[in-house]
Amino acid sequence: MDPNLDKALDFARHEQDRFLTELKELLRIPSISSDPAQRAETERAAEWLAQRLRAMNVDQVQVQPTDGYPVVFGQLAAAQPGAPTILVYGHYDVQSAAPLADWRSDPFEPAVRDENLYARGATDMKGQVLACLAAVESVQQAGPLPVNLKFMFEGEEEIGSASLPAYLAAHREQLASDVSLNTDAGMIARDLPAIAYALRGSMVFKLIVRGPAKDLHSGIFGDTVHNPIVALAELIAGLHEADGRVAVPGFYDRVRPLEAAERAELARSPMDDAFYLRETGVPALWGEPGYTAVERVGARPAITVNHIAGGEPKSAIPAEAQARIGVRLVADQDPAEISALLQQYVADHTPPTVTAELVELAGGLPAVQADRNLPAVQAMRQALEEVWGVRPLFHRVGGSIPAVTLLQDILGIDSVLSGFSVFADDNLHGPNEKLHLPTWRRGIEALIRFFYLFGAS
Amino acid sequence: MDPNLDKALDFARHEQDRFLTELKELLRIPSISSDPAQRAETERAAEWLAQRLRAMNVDQVQVQPTDGYPVVFGQLAAAQPGAPTILVYGHYDVQSAAPLADWRSDPFEPAVRDENLYARGATDMKGQVLACLAAVESVQQAGPLPVNLKFMFEGEEEIGSASLPAYLAAHREQLASDVSLNTDAGMIARDLPAIAYALRGSMVFKLIVRGPAKDLHSGIFGDTVHNPIVALAELIAGLHEADGRVAVPGFYDRVRPLEAAERAELARSPMDDAFYLRETGVPALWGEPGYTAVERVGARPAITVNHIAGGEPKSAIPAEAQARIGVRLVADQDPAEISALLQQYVADHTPPTVTAELVELAGGLPAVQADRNLPAVQAMRQALEEVWGVRPLFHRVGGSIPAVTLLQDILGIDSVLSGFSVFADDNLHGPNEKLHLPTWRRGIEALIRFFYLFGAS
Repeated sequence: MDPNLDKALDFARHEQDRFLTELKELLRIPSISSDPAQRAETERAAEWLAQRLRAMNVDQVQVQPTDGYPVVFGQLAAAQPGAPTILVYGHYDVQSAAPLADWRSDPFEPAVRDENLYARGATDMKGQVLACLAAVESVQQAGPLPVNLKFMFEGEEEIGSASLPAYLAAHREQLASDVSLNTDAGMIARDLPAIAYALRGSMVFKLIVRGPAKDLHSGIFGDTVHNPIVALAELIAGLHEADGRVAVPGFYDRVRPLEAAERAELARSPMDDAFYLRETGVPALWGEPGYTAVERVGARPAITVNHIAGGEPKSAIPAEAQARIGVRLVADQDPAEISALLQQYVADHTPPTVTAELVELAGGLPAVQADRNLPAVQAMRQALEEVWGVRPLFHRVGGSIPAVTLLQDILGIDSVLSGFSVFADDNLHGPNEKLHLPTWRRGIEALIRFFYLFGAS
Repeated sequence: MDPNLDKALDFARHEQDRFLTELKELLRIPSISSDPAQRAETERAAEWLAQRLRAMNVDQVQVQPTDGYPVVFGQLAAAQPGAPTILVYGHYDVQSAAPLADWRSDPFEPAVRDENLYARGATDMKGQVLACLAAVESVQQAGPLPVNLKFMFEGEEEIGSASLPAYLAAHREQLASDVSLNTDAGMIARDLPAIAYALRGSMVFKLIVRGPAKDLHSGIFGDTVHNPIVALAELIAGLHEADGRVAVPGFYDRVRPLEAAERAELARSPMDDAFYLRETGVPALWGEPGYTAVERVGARPAITVNHIAGGEPKSAIPAEAQARIGVRLVADQDPAEISALLQQYVADHTPPTVTAELVELAGGLPAVQADRNLPAVQAMRQALEEVWGVRPLFHRVGGSIPAVTLLQDILGIDSVLSGFSVFADDNLHGPNEKLHLPTWRRGIEALIRFFYLFGAS
């Protein structure tokens, strides 16, 4: 082990209050990429990170424009030539904080309660980004840098990373790295660190059902037209069989089956069905039969409806109703083929009494399934085990991280996927998002160890 | 015929510009009873009407408080004792103007285009109320009053007339009348006046489906819980059979069948299926098989969904989703029984994966079906025929007018149901609500004739 490790860990412990103060500063910036009204604030978050990198004497710090929000770039050279290069990925944008009424404290005024820091973005992922920077700074202060580092912080992860493909293609040389460190993948429980080897892909659609040319009085016309709300409900209801299986023909055709060894490893997860029942608060779980909840989330594709809207609370029949439909893909489903299957479903099931339009809102993102034996992955496994004292769980993540797919597809860079956001506990994307501070500090320690371990590998 | 008829008709023609100016004044008051922010304006509309009655030397004009919006009352004695008494009903409240973007001109700044007066409330029913007052004033000016008149204008028709039952019970003596004149029931086409003899009843429910305790990330939890939007869609989809029949068991059990003579009279209506297709702009009509559209609207019960909402346009699964469900009742359905049947439907069809709550938002209003041979009804038939030169259509109205039911149930007063709002043309409850001015003027003439005919009957 590197003789400077203890110095780096001491530095991190000594500076933990400052690291927290800096995180609060960043969390006060409402960088909601989905909200055009917060454009200036979102850009301010990028500037803030650039300043933070400059304060660490990172080289070539730039806020590089894209078609959307800018990417913050910087790099640091290792002390020795031939050291591996890590591309530290992060995103500085956050989800909308709606519904505001459900927050116990202002989402953009960080509040510490019971060892947790509450704020939008605390866990997803400003806390993770600053954990990486705290770890890098600690290693810098302790002695020679064991790895080359590059930083790439985007501002569009929560809206699908639309500008990233063009950015990556335009900055191949600058970004060239051996591996990407991605701490946006979280962990399972406070006492069980995790490394993800599969991410689901995603697609988003808007389904619009149109009926009458204008809103109609429900008494005078209620029995003559197919209500767009009802027709939309019928289309949505038809997406699943009664048992929870997706009913769209062909939807499962290309799904890569779960191997027995994977099922055994996933069974180690404390996220058993009782866990999901407790964490979600639903009266009973639901989903495709034949799989545990953790298997469904990680290894099975899904169709979800995130939003539905139609009409006003008055006695009228609306001219239209619409829903936002999300699809989660697994290896080896092809987004273009799934899109065609859904279009076919809508065409086949729309009655002659209304018209329906299915619009794909963003380019489909395929799933990623990675090699568990990469040196960087093994270094992370060891670093996590050293801090937590348990074998990390190799698991699958139900969400998508476009950057992981794009780095692989465009630049051929694999990602080490971990992080210190505690699944099901930190209210990712929901009200009262939080960061468990003791876990965050352990995460900083694990990242420090990871840099030394990977540098020595 | 009364020798003063021609004088009254001349007066109405001579004053038509003033009548229009007054109507515009009333239409500028945004008396939206459903909007608490418009409380002062809604009350101002009541004061405006009281002033208008006082200007006509109506006796005992009062703005009488209720638990909600006040009722404007006044009365005028006939020249001869023993003349019949007509209670002139009206409502001064209007529907919300949402969605505002769909209006071609400000809903509360009346605009005349192509012989139509555009404004919220122009046809429903400020235009109808002022047609009654214009007719009364014309008859007053022409000579001795042939009937006793009472006026009762409420401010809660668009929100279910919740305060009317208590008001009627508390003012029995004051309101005692032979018949009520209700011009809120409209006509079929500009060249076909109508008298309604049946009104559907109505009920309003909110159906709330609750799933997870909080909004969840759709990737991480999307496959473990029954999405409340999907579960709500399934409940809504199950309300109807594929052919459009209501699927709630027992829903049709007590429905009074259409008689052959009624079907023949309804077949006179120009509102044939082609009419509904044209007016609604839907690609194909929909509804219970075995009935024409006009029969479904007037004589068959219906379940409609006016509003649905759930989630936000982001990658989350919402904790709940809800819909506003309206039921239209016909004779002899019992609101309490229908409520119980719907509760049973929800209980039987809610899966164990979510909870569902069906809340009745207002007391159910039964349907009304009236005698077509009342003297006042026959006087109206003759008055309309004299003006339009055609036999008026006796028809059924798909909407509800709580006052009609309540006057019958509480005070034993039948209503003559007519009016000069042209169905399907005047955008009742929708954007660009309007009043066809030539039809309105014919309506004033018909009302003048009605007062003389009924006074002489």
